[in-house]
Amino acid sequence: MSHFSIKPASSSTAARVGSVVTPHGTFTTPEFMPVGSQASVKTLDPVDMNRTGVQIILANAYHIYLRPGTQVIEAMGGLHRFMSWDGPILTDSGGFQVFSLARLGRINDSGVAFRSHIDGSEHFFTPELAVEIQEKLGGDIIMVLDQCHRHDLDTEGTMEAMHRTHRWALRCLDHHRRKDQSMYAIVQGGMFPELRKESAQFLASLEFPGYAIGGLSVGEPKAVTWAMLDEVIPELPTDRPRYLMGVGAPEDIVMAVAKGVDLFDSVLPTRVARHGAVFTDFGRLNLKNTAFASADQQLDESCDCHTCRTFSLAYLHHLFKCEEMLGYRLATLHNLRFMARLMQRIRDSIDQGSFDSFLNQFLESYRTSNESVRLEQKRKWLKAKASPVGTDPVL
Amino acid sequence: MSHFSIKPASSSTAARVGSVVTPHGTFTTPEFMPVGSQASVKTLDPVDMNRTGVQIILANAYHIYLRPGTQVIEAMGGLHRFMSWDGPILTDSGGFQVFSLARLGRINDSGVAFRSHIDGSEHFFTPELAVEIQEKLGGDIIMVLDQCHRHDLDTEGTMEAMHRTHRWALRCLDHHRRKDQSMYAIVQGGMFPELRKESAQFLASLEFPGYAIGGLSVGEPKAVTWAMLDEVIPELPTDRPRYLMGVGAPEDIVMAVAKGVDLFDSVLPTRVARHGAVFTDFGRLNLKNTAFASADQQLDESCDCHTCRTFSLAYLHHLFKCEEMLGYRLATLHNLRFMARLMQRIRDSIDQGSFDSFLNQFLESYRTSNESVRLEQKRKWLKAKASPVGTDPVL
Repeated sequence: MSHFSIKPASSSTAARVGSVVTPHGTFTTPEFMPVGSQASVKTLDPVDMNRTGVQIILANAYHIYLRPGTQVIEAMGGLHRFMSWDGPILTDSGGFQVFSLARLGRINDSGVAFRSHIDGSEHFFTPELAVEIQEKLGGDIIMVLDQCHRHDLDTEGTMEAMHRTHRWALRCLDHHRRKDQSMYAIVQGGMFPELRKESAQFLASLEFPGYAIGGLSVGEPKAVTWAMLDEVIPELPTDRPRYLMGVGAPEDIVMAVAKGVDLFDSVLPTRVARHGAVFTDFGRLNLKNTAFASADQQLDESCDCHTCRTFSLAYLHHLFKCEEMLGYRLATLHNLRFMARLMQRIRDSIDQGSFDSFLNQFLESYRTSNESVRLEQKRKWLKAKASPVGTDPVL
Repeated sequence: MSHFSIKPASSSTAARVGSVVTPHGTFTTPEFMPVGSQASVKTLDPVDMNRTGVQIILANAYHIYLRPGTQVIEAMGGLHRFMSWDGPILTDSGGFQVFSLARLGRINDSGVAFRSHIDGSEHFFTPELAVEIQEKLGGDIIMVLDQCHRHDLDTEGTMEAMHRTHRWALRCLDHHRRKDQSMYAIVQGGMFPELRKESAQFLASLEFPGYAIGGLSVGEPKAVTWAMLDEVIPELPTDRPRYLMGVGAPEDIVMAVAKGVDLFDSVLPTRVARHGAVFTDFGRLNLKNTAFASADQQLDESCDCHTCRTFSLAYLHHLFKCEEMLGYRLATLHNLRFMARLMQRIRDSIDQGSFDSFLNQFLESYRTSNESVRLEQKRKWLKAKASPVGTDPVL
């Protein structure tokens, strides 16, 4: 059975509906993957995740390698059994975390040295080790190790990192043994159109079962993100899933689907939920807003999630004001249900040939935050990630 | 229909099985009430609470009066609707919190002045106001306002507080309008046997539908707790529920049931859960113990809770090590299910005439912490309660 199949498209955009077959079930695309970095989608258990309608989750090799350690997961029979989630899992290779979260050490062709963000201990990742870790974790889809970098790196540096990413991709392919797992390549090339094109062409020639686009949505202006995507997508094989890493804002997902992206992941929906920001078709609401103190209606009248069906805005507001942990879970449940419903509506409208009008309608009603505000938030977040875990239990 | 009825007892102890009828259903006794101080049993939603088998919960007039405020709850149709819990609720009057958590001001016969532990704002509670607040919250069982104090207060001070508590009880009775709610009296008298006896006798003469025993388990040695209980219980009417406030350690509950107590509440099972301490028949386990890092068995083989049926000790250990919020909820679910099962086993053994042997067996296998360690923990906790909320999200 082929890993990926696409339904006949009927949209004037590049949007398509597909399905991805994995050892833990088939999921439909376009799809958004919630992030369970440390083998837990923050605040939720597997029953909750099933209730939101999520089809596949992402876990992180970097975090899990550090804690509890690859050996523990292997001894427990793999990540699925460890966290009691029997749906598909994609594991990230740790490339992004090594370059953003850890204290970076020497990088050369053999691999990358880094210090743990938890205890400062020294580690060395090679492409081969990244594959081995992910084989032991047992995710259904695994990622090659790539070299990530700042979005404003110069041409020379970006080219060097890209070529290294390509050499590492070849070594990952060569080292990968567990053929029940599908390994995806990661396109790099920074903000340089010609490098993006080259990276996509080179990796496409290697016949990976899926292609991720890395190094985007890392602080660059939105227009640049879309321009890079426009370089990459035409070079990728039509019959393989395309995964835009780290993108999770509803308005960005809708746009990227129109450009032909199939898969997304981001901590955004779960992270902002723990700060009281909840998604609706009209943009985000802030549950801490005092306007909700006596609001006897549900958060989102059109939503069927546990939170919306059970509690009033006034109660959710109260939980956030009192820093009651239940609030973090209820907001997370809502945001993931919103994402699942959004992806379902995207798939349905593509199926029905009405994605163009869905796209326009959605973007018209969804009020987004100002781009400069957003970039500032992103900078703060990337900075906060660099400090030790545990200082802010909500982040 | 009478508020309380007792099944014929068949134990050589004073233990009895009863049932309490409320507007939101009947619950069986002996029973333990989890605490939802701020209209939330920390980390759990009503579905979770139903899954644990809890029959009745306690909410706190002091906390809810301060946040979100009595008017909000009244406008939302009462506490049951606000928090989506349609089982019985007992609300505490706030007496204990005013004397332990708030910054205490002037006390005289008219009432007690205090400053909010949240923002320092000034408030004045009278017995009448405590009743009115609780009428607006709409709990099924409400409590009189009592004057609480340190366990080592002298005879004169203790006697003065007790007599004031008695005068306030009369005023609460006089002011109480909502006859669908049952209002319980609170016996005080400190650690003085003759005062305890006098308090119980006086309040018993007033024909309250239920009787609480307050001011115990507040730092005094366990032997003194039991001695006071032995003074009070014989003076209370047999046909009314007896509620020992603030007691929640499994070994203490079993002992107090043997002395004829019907109802308990404490934050202990939920609070220690958030620190990784989980109950078993052999005492508490600390989930952070590194011995559990690779433990592929369930926390408690005899437990049927969601946590035990779904996750390994190794996973729970991992969640606590990583400070994942899911861990706090899973440990809370287990501890409340343990309490519900413990109370069920207590009721069954009383029913079957085997409570004496259950008591001995339980106390023999349940390893408790050393009394001096426990008193030190209690002191720390009472002290921590006096600092502003929000400094430790786990407490």
